[in-house]
Amino acid sequence: MTYCVGLCLKNGLVFLADTRTNAGVDQIGIFRKMTLFQKDKDRFFALMSSGNLAITQAVKEILLQGKLLSGKNLWNAANAHEAAEVVGDAIKKVYERDFEALKKAGIDFNCNLIFGGQVRGENPRLFNVYSAGNFIEATPENCYFQIGESKYGKPILDRVVNFQTPLNLATKCALISMDSTLKSNISVGLPLDLLVYETNSFHPSKLVTIDESNPYYQMIHQVWGQKLRAAFMEIPEPSWNSSRRGTAIMSSSKELGAVPIEHENKKKSATKPKRQSHKK
Amino acid sequence: MTYCVGLCLKNGLVFLADTRTNAGVDQIGIFRKMTLFQKDKDRFFALMSSGNLAITQAVKEILLQGKLLSGKNLWNAANAHEAAEVVGDAIKKVYERDFEALKKAGIDFNCNLIFGGQVRGENPRLFNVYSAGNFIEATPENCYFQIGESKYGKPILDRVVNFQTPLNLATKCALISMDSTLKSNISVGLPLDLLVYETNSFHPSKLVTIDESNPYYQMIHQVWGQKLRAAFMEIPEPSWNSSRRGTAIMSSSKELGAVPIEHENKKKSATKPKRQSHKK
Repeated sequence: MTYCVGLCLKNGLVFLADTRTNAGVDQIGIFRKMTLFQKDKDRFFALMSSGNLAITQAVKEILLQGKLLSGKNLWNAANAHEAAEVVGDAIKKVYERDFEALKKAGIDFNCNLIFGGQVRGENPRLFNVYSAGNFIEATPENCYFQIGESKYGKPILDRVVNFQTPLNLATKCALISMDSTLKSNISVGLPLDLLVYETNSFHPSKLVTIDESNPYYQMIHQVWGQKLRAAFMEIPEPSWNSSRRGTAIMSSSKELGAVPIEHENKKKSATKPKRQSHKK
Repeated sequence: MTYCVGLCLKNGLVFLADTRTNAGVDQIGIFRKMTLFQKDKDRFFALMSSGNLAITQAVKEILLQGKLLSGKNLWNAANAHEAAEVVGDAIKKVYERDFEALKKAGIDFNCNLIFGGQVRGENPRLFNVYSAGNFIEATPENCYFQIGESKYGKPILDRVVNFQTPLNLATKCALISMDSTLKSNISVGLPLDLLVYETNSFHPSKLVTIDESNPYYQMIHQVWGQKLRAAFMEIPEPSWNSSRRGTAIMSSSKELGAVPIEHENKKKSATKPKRQSHKK
């Protein structure tokens, strides 16, 4: 499995990827899921991948070789949208090569990518590229994408991040999202590759590989659980027999009555009306 | 979809179920996923279901009719383990009836249940019964089960609940877990059926159906997001250029170097050593 999250914000982009791969729980490996492409002060791209490793490595190889796909590659694409088309075309190329053989082996063609960056003259952009090579783009209303094991780490992103969030705050949130995922799914694992891309830098100024010895990640890992428990303890408990505003839990739904309670052998009981009425 | 969570704790059991069903996003319904069985002061059971509604309703019907399966039903089972066997046998009965026809229609036989309660002479017990009718039981080390859309609501359970947790605290946690799930998956929806079963009560003393007008749920829904954001804001941001203990993020993994940066057309660049060395 994999967990990668990419955010497209007002001031730039954040990319965070784990490095664990597995083929069953008895075959665990470390593979890079982040690839970075830079051309002078003209363009900078990051690619993160999840899915079948043979497929995603093949896609990456095509992109690294700079093969022209419909006349384009990542180095000459006119803008980030065209670059995302190149990534999609690379997937289609691998599909042509491998799909039939994979199908015979009963293996899905599974390739899910987050691709983003900046081409001079544009703002940074972020795309989620699917197995079919088609893609969607992040917008201010939907400013992040997740691939792989996305669910454990989604609630904190939804509660905290929006397009205006500063990069450093978003970085903290991405790391907490990752930490929650690591805690719940052993097929997602350290080290992590983290890139914070600042608009118009065309350079990976904040790029780090994080393992268990990283002071900041250690702190997040320890403190977030404590803070979460503290926040939890601050919320009042339900009160079952009071009308205290805000904690009364017994006010039952009007449209749906309470769950009925089933008793043994209703028909027989109906011949003993007293007992039955008592039970109701 | 569905989200149900059941907890087996020192002082009793907590059951929480949503009521939304769907067949595609354009066919949404409300169905009870919780069923309660009570026999005097002798036994009390709760059943929560997820999966194919036709299957889970058929299972429920067999149990309600009190049909004898291998000579047993919920009313005469000697203990909760035998009662879980009865539930498993009811699934097997529906399997015999429907599996072939479902298979022809390309539909999985999907039925996942949480079943628990107390038979006099035993402590409360909790089981997760699978589609094959087999089941596992909760233990003090693994004191809760989830069925349906389980991932969004799991992190808070893992951080907060253990076997010693008081029932009221666990109830609060179950509701927060549900609220996180509702926020992220529209196929899980209000109203909620909540039961808190106190050991040796043999009676659903705390049973309520919760909709958006419930004061306690309203409070949870509003306050938890605020508390979570406040906890988030209390955690320091990463510092990229300092050695401040606890917030320094630039200490890179020793075993894995930084992600390499790919530049255009390496081979060609190799013939211009100066520029290439600059780029590296």
